[in-house]
Amino acid sequence: MSDLQDLTRKLQRQSDSKIVMLVADGLGGLPIEAGGGTELETAKTPNMDALAKAGTLGLSTPVLPGIAPGSGPGHLGLFGYDPLEYQIGRGVLEALGIDFELGPNDVAIRGNFCTLDADGNITDRRAGRVGSDIAMKLCEKLDTIEIPGVEVFVQHVKEYRLVIVFRGEGLGGNVNDTDPQRTGVPPLEPVGEDEPSQKTAEIAKQFLAQAKEILKDDLPANLLTMRGIDKMPAVPTYKEVYGVRAAAIAVYPMYRGLARLVSMDILDAGQTLNDQMDRLKAAWDDYDFFFVHFKYTDSTGEDGNFPAKVQRTEELDAIIPRITELNPDVLIVTGDHSTPAKMKSHSWHPVPVLLSSDLCRPDRCQEFGESECIMGGLGQFPAKYLMGFAMAHAGRLEKFGA
Amino acid sequence: MSDLQDLTRKLQRQSDSKIVMLVADGLGGLPIEAGGGTELETAKTPNMDALAKAGTLGLSTPVLPGIAPGSGPGHLGLFGYDPLEYQIGRGVLEALGIDFELGPNDVAIRGNFCTLDADGNITDRRAGRVGSDIAMKLCEKLDTIEIPGVEVFVQHVKEYRLVIVFRGEGLGGNVNDTDPQRTGVPPLEPVGEDEPSQKTAEIAKQFLAQAKEILKDDLPANLLTMRGIDKMPAVPTYKEVYGVRAAAIAVYPMYRGLARLVSMDILDAGQTLNDQMDRLKAAWDDYDFFFVHFKYTDSTGEDGNFPAKVQRTEELDAIIPRITELNPDVLIVTGDHSTPAKMKSHSWHPVPVLLSSDLCRPDRCQEFGESECIMGGLGQFPAKYLMGFAMAHAGRLEKFGA
Repeated sequence: MSDLQDLTRKLQRQSDSKIVMLVADGLGGLPIEAGGGTELETAKTPNMDALAKAGTLGLSTPVLPGIAPGSGPGHLGLFGYDPLEYQIGRGVLEALGIDFELGPNDVAIRGNFCTLDADGNITDRRAGRVGSDIAMKLCEKLDTIEIPGVEVFVQHVKEYRLVIVFRGEGLGGNVNDTDPQRTGVPPLEPVGEDEPSQKTAEIAKQFLAQAKEILKDDLPANLLTMRGIDKMPAVPTYKEVYGVRAAAIAVYPMYRGLARLVSMDILDAGQTLNDQMDRLKAAWDDYDFFFVHFKYTDSTGEDGNFPAKVQRTEELDAIIPRITELNPDVLIVTGDHSTPAKMKSHSWHPVPVLLSSDLCRPDRCQEFGESECIMGGLGQFPAKYLMGFAMAHAGRLEKFGA
Repeated sequence: MSDLQDLTRKLQRQSDSKIVMLVADGLGGLPIEAGGGTELETAKTPNMDALAKAGTLGLSTPVLPGIAPGSGPGHLGLFGYDPLEYQIGRGVLEALGIDFELGPNDVAIRGNFCTLDADGNITDRRAGRVGSDIAMKLCEKLDTIEIPGVEVFVQHVKEYRLVIVFRGEGLGGNVNDTDPQRTGVPPLEPVGEDEPSQKTAEIAKQFLAQAKEILKDDLPANLLTMRGIDKMPAVPTYKEVYGVRAAAIAVYPMYRGLARLVSMDILDAGQTLNDQMDRLKAAWDDYDFFFVHFKYTDSTGEDGNFPAKVQRTEELDAIIPRITELNPDVLIVTGDHSTPAKMKSHSWHPVPVLLSSDLCRPDRCQEFGESECIMGGLGQFPAKYLMGFAMAHAGRLEKFGA
């Protein structure tokens, strides 16, 4: 638990106030050309600008200066969890990304179909990028594997990628990857670093032995390697840490999974921003905290499509009135990290934060944009502290000490 | 000890420089209406504005983002002590607040007179808010209680509130409250969490048994409950951490007590700011560091009286020349937390800081106010680091490392 969460757990005060955290994935950007504005600064965002003028801006650092986070650490930070303390294995993230409901006894593994030659050496680590239609059928076959003492789940992800989950008591998550990261050699044996993980490694060996038999005629996908073998981190719940009933309204499974990790309720989000707003309105009375996720500011950034990211930002701005008409006590608009179209990737640049509430101390910012945020009243702060600001402005924290 | 204090302890350099820290309690504020200024921004403060223009501004976070501190953690932060590391129990604070000189062998307890019915159940947790005149006499009776092996002190605070102190070797401070927090049930038994605290719990039981006998005819105050049972935290002294001779000039006992906690000398402050300035001048040669406390920016904020807080701020500004005429090497004007009149309570909003010295690096700030402080050269920083700036600008720190 972060130092701040240790306090919010003790100081939380019941209230009927409402908090909305609207996360535009990858919101932060860069100018595409010298002298220009960022995507957010280029976009026409009259609604967010009005909120910025009356509210308080700032910049958050997702992990540490210079560190570009993945979606996992980016969101954990926004949710108030120190992303260095709670690390999410690749297998877990892959399972979350296909809406697999991981439990505390589950070990999640990212699988890659691969090609073995007659000597048992890997000739292709991605099985010739086998098509999803074939791979899906192979996953159905693998899903029939039975191992005494554990439940086994196999689900297809995309092309050569799959997820394997072992569910059972006393399984550990410290097992090496079996992918040797090169061809011409056999897969590595799974080895557990501690006793519970040795148990997992034994199960993995049995699974791989059966898989070899099942897939023997399925070239080029005649085996799989295992990566990112891990359990979910034991994360204290939102209810425990903040005392709020929290709900996630996210179209993409990965973000539902990250919200599930901190025990938010997962609401049906539909497919569009308007669907999400319908859901927000319908669920308004049932929750205190709403995490609303918008993916396309990130995906357009990843595509390197500056104009498309600008347009997606404007699309987001246009639905702001559907939130403000509900009169949330605190409305936050921010991102989980920056994804500048110029870089076509997540970046370390700090993330613009807009906080709107009746208890904001005014700063001199006039609109929502990165340059303006530098002068914001929230300053530059670690993302894990954003929930402190949210809780305080919502009147949900008692005084610390007398 | 905070990470910075660990350094200042090693790097302190003797000097004849003088530091004055003028603490306007609850200094930070909020506009009372949209588009307006805060109390500090509304007040006419020509003296502080002149210092701000030549000096450096900043904003301090007393504990962590979003956390509103009480007076204890607020001041410990200003004094450079991590308020999360040194937590002050309610009993200790209550004792400090009546100028009781707590020592290292003392356990301090906040007492509340209460009313018991014939069955021994509490019918009123505040003894009908018994008057101070009656309660004072009851405290005098309780002060006669003798318990072998310890000294017992009982002092009245206000209405139904009192302070009990047990002084003796080997007493622990981890004892539960005996106040059950509701009526219709008997008080709880004191129970110690560890061996030294079990000793304290035994003494508390003997005290309560004798108190029951003494108060049996004193309805509605025929017993008392105990709360916030604690010892003073073992705090390293100012002399040790900073190598300065430090003095406190505070009108209110609570703030003298907090200064005593870090081993400052407590000077007679009189009743007014002018009395305090007389004392500052008289003691100028005898100390290196002066903590001067002004209460009324907080109490007017707590009252929700915006104009009164503005006026108190102007009153404070008017005595600034009495400090500057003494030519301190460093003059700091700040608060221990914000107390916006709009909220009638302490808040989490960061606290304006003004540092004046010949070694200030100029920023572009023109006057002392919250919006201006956002752009100040000290930035936004945890309050516990303020003493680092003070010591450095006073030429009282050696270089770290070669």
